[in-house]
Amino acid sequence: MLSSTIKERLDGLRTPFYLYDMGLLERTLEQVTRHSSRYGYAVHYALKANFEPRIFEYVRRFGLGVDCVSGNEVRYAIESGFPPSGIVYAGVGKSDAEMEYGLRHDIFAFNCESRQEVGVLNGIAARMGKVANVALRINPDVDPESHRYISTGQADSKFGISYREISELTAELGEMRNVRVSGLHFHIGSQIRNMAVFAKLCRRVNTLYEWFAAAGFSLGHINVGGGLGVNYEDPETEPIPDFATYFGTFHKNLRVGDCRVHFELGRSIVGQCGELVSRVLFTKTTAGGRNVAILDTSMTDLVRPALYQARHSIENLDGAGRAAREYIIAGTACETSDIFRDEVTLPELRRGDLVAIKSTGAYGSVMASRYNMHDIAPAVFSDTLVRASLRGL
Amino acid sequence: MLSSTIKERLDGLRTPFYLYDMGLLERTLEQVTRHSSRYGYAVHYALKANFEPRIFEYVRRFGLGVDCVSGNEVRYAIESGFPPSGIVYAGVGKSDAEMEYGLRHDIFAFNCESRQEVGVLNGIAARMGKVANVALRINPDVDPESHRYISTGQADSKFGISYREISELTAELGEMRNVRVSGLHFHIGSQIRNMAVFAKLCRRVNTLYEWFAAAGFSLGHINVGGGLGVNYEDPETEPIPDFATYFGTFHKNLRVGDCRVHFELGRSIVGQCGELVSRVLFTKTTAGGRNVAILDTSMTDLVRPALYQARHSIENLDGAGRAAREYIIAGTACETSDIFRDEVTLPELRRGDLVAIKSTGAYGSVMASRYNMHDIAPAVFSDTLVRASLRGL
Repeated sequence: MLSSTIKERLDGLRTPFYLYDMGLLERTLEQVTRHSSRYGYAVHYALKANFEPRIFEYVRRFGLGVDCVSGNEVRYAIESGFPPSGIVYAGVGKSDAEMEYGLRHDIFAFNCESRQEVGVLNGIAARMGKVANVALRINPDVDPESHRYISTGQADSKFGISYREISELTAELGEMRNVRVSGLHFHIGSQIRNMAVFAKLCRRVNTLYEWFAAAGFSLGHINVGGGLGVNYEDPETEPIPDFATYFGTFHKNLRVGDCRVHFELGRSIVGQCGELVSRVLFTKTTAGGRNVAILDTSMTDLVRPALYQARHSIENLDGAGRAAREYIIAGTACETSDIFRDEVTLPELRRGDLVAIKSTGAYGSVMASRYNMHDIAPAVFSDTLVRASLRGL
Repeated sequence: MLSSTIKERLDGLRTPFYLYDMGLLERTLEQVTRHSSRYGYAVHYALKANFEPRIFEYVRRFGLGVDCVSGNEVRYAIESGFPPSGIVYAGVGKSDAEMEYGLRHDIFAFNCESRQEVGVLNGIAARMGKVANVALRINPDVDPESHRYISTGQADSKFGISYREISELTAELGEMRNVRVSGLHFHIGSQIRNMAVFAKLCRRVNTLYEWFAAAGFSLGHINVGGGLGVNYEDPETEPIPDFATYFGTFHKNLRVGDCRVHFELGRSIVGQCGELVSRVLFTKTTAGGRNVAILDTSMTDLVRPALYQARHSIENLDGAGRAAREYIIAGTACETSDIFRDEVTLPELRRGDLVAIKSTGAYGSVMASRYNMHDIAPAVFSDTLVRASLRGL
């Protein structure tokens, strides 16, 4: 990754910080746009993955839309210069004020997650003299044709509209003058690396599309969500996900008439371009004989390992030529769960060594907290860093 | 809890917010100081539990010391008017700058967690012409007399100094002119409600104290940490933990000569005085037939359920007279883990209902994030709220 190639330029910087490889981000965005445009697909960047202004600006330059999950995200996207016509607003809990804001700016679609939400949105739109474009988020584990559960795992999810509510909702929609159901929305999960899962999603979407078409809905778009994973285990071999195969899978399997197909990608765009760079503060040996290295970062900078038991690849940037040892990599927070890796083999770690936690561009800085009154780790960008370095700074 | 008794005063407030019962905080602090002073015990407030300035000010007025886990916390305590002589600074990862700050202000003690840390602290103190007061944080699961593991569960903890390092460290200490080992520090965990656990801790501390005394250490204090739990299941019946029994357990079991005994209490002081107050945005029914209520708060305000599978008692403040139903209580964040309770029986929840998530005074607001670009929930204090209300506002 970038950190090892520009290591000398990092030595003088105060740790911890997020290092972003803007060249990799650019190449990733090129791949996304190249392979999606082949089929006329619309891609929305899932802003929740990373809201660093400079990263968002790169996304804007490539013409992507935005997938927002809060009113603040919608406002941020609009104020960052994204056209409202490319903004979708999803989320199970939209407040009245958030809906009003989206309506005032005529965003592309509200992805609605419950029957009640559609009714509330209709009421607000009526008061404002607007018509809201709505995509119904359907829980894809339910087949409305057979009213059969396809999987119980998602059957009680808080997300989406269940088959129990669809028929009541479609009956009610006839009375709603201020919402127009222009699409369907699906999202089955994240960090999916097996294309067969997406092929299966397509088949469910096809079924649901047919049901809605037969029910008389005139749909203009189908939003299949995101979920494309990145290679956390070995990011060097796969810095850019295989977007050709990803979009090709949808092209091959999706049958949704003339509907435009929309995607919401976050992790696959920004996951690999970020690294959390820190230093070893202390090493020690436990009673059980394990080596522990304490970094000067913690779960307040990167909560994924504590929250999801996520495993990020870690590199000792000062480890060249040293013998490998097995480590527990711990953070500074006063929390037992603040462990980045509970068993990882690395070249010997010594106090002061620079350590990179990789693939942290997505769901890293955005989940930062000030627990233990920790400072928020700043962002360092490869392009300005290199430029600064060329000026001799 | 407070929210139900002053419900009318909350109706006009924008949700979500943390509501703090300052009367309960005051009564809790009275109990802490009354029962600890009976034995001459020193109590440090574990600032990491809640760093709201007004709460911290109440703690200061009762004369407690502070248990800090970062340089920012040490600075905040000093700038809030706490005497440095009552400040202990713990944590596995203290940076050089943080140590320097503590040394400059002559804090009561550095709780050191590794052999290497003691050496680094000695070096920094030497450069500054200071002598650092150190309490060695010993992993209490290890008995240095027998070199026997008492429990494997903690044997590989990132916290504390293991028996493997103690003997080397004690040899090195003879050469260190700028640290003075004035105490021992222990902390075995949190949310402990069984007093037998503390009695067992005392017996281990007694053993370790004897070992250090025999090794020629002249100890002035023993810090037994915190860990006293609160009643999350049924906070109404136990708004104030049983501090009499807690301190009495230590008095009965601890044998540490003339050492002053120090405690670090956080959750037991502030846990019950806080509630997270929100409103129901939407209700819906899943394919599995479960009722879901979406609140206008999320894991960004309170991460304990997602991070620790913590179960907080929840009350529908508008539920009087309604039939009970079983609910999934979900937050607004775009995260499957953003569920406050996955199965709880409450009076029917309707859109707009005010809902209190109780016992959230500790490890609530301090762990807030801006994930999904959510705003940080503000704090509302019972005393100023009541005063505002009396002025007719």
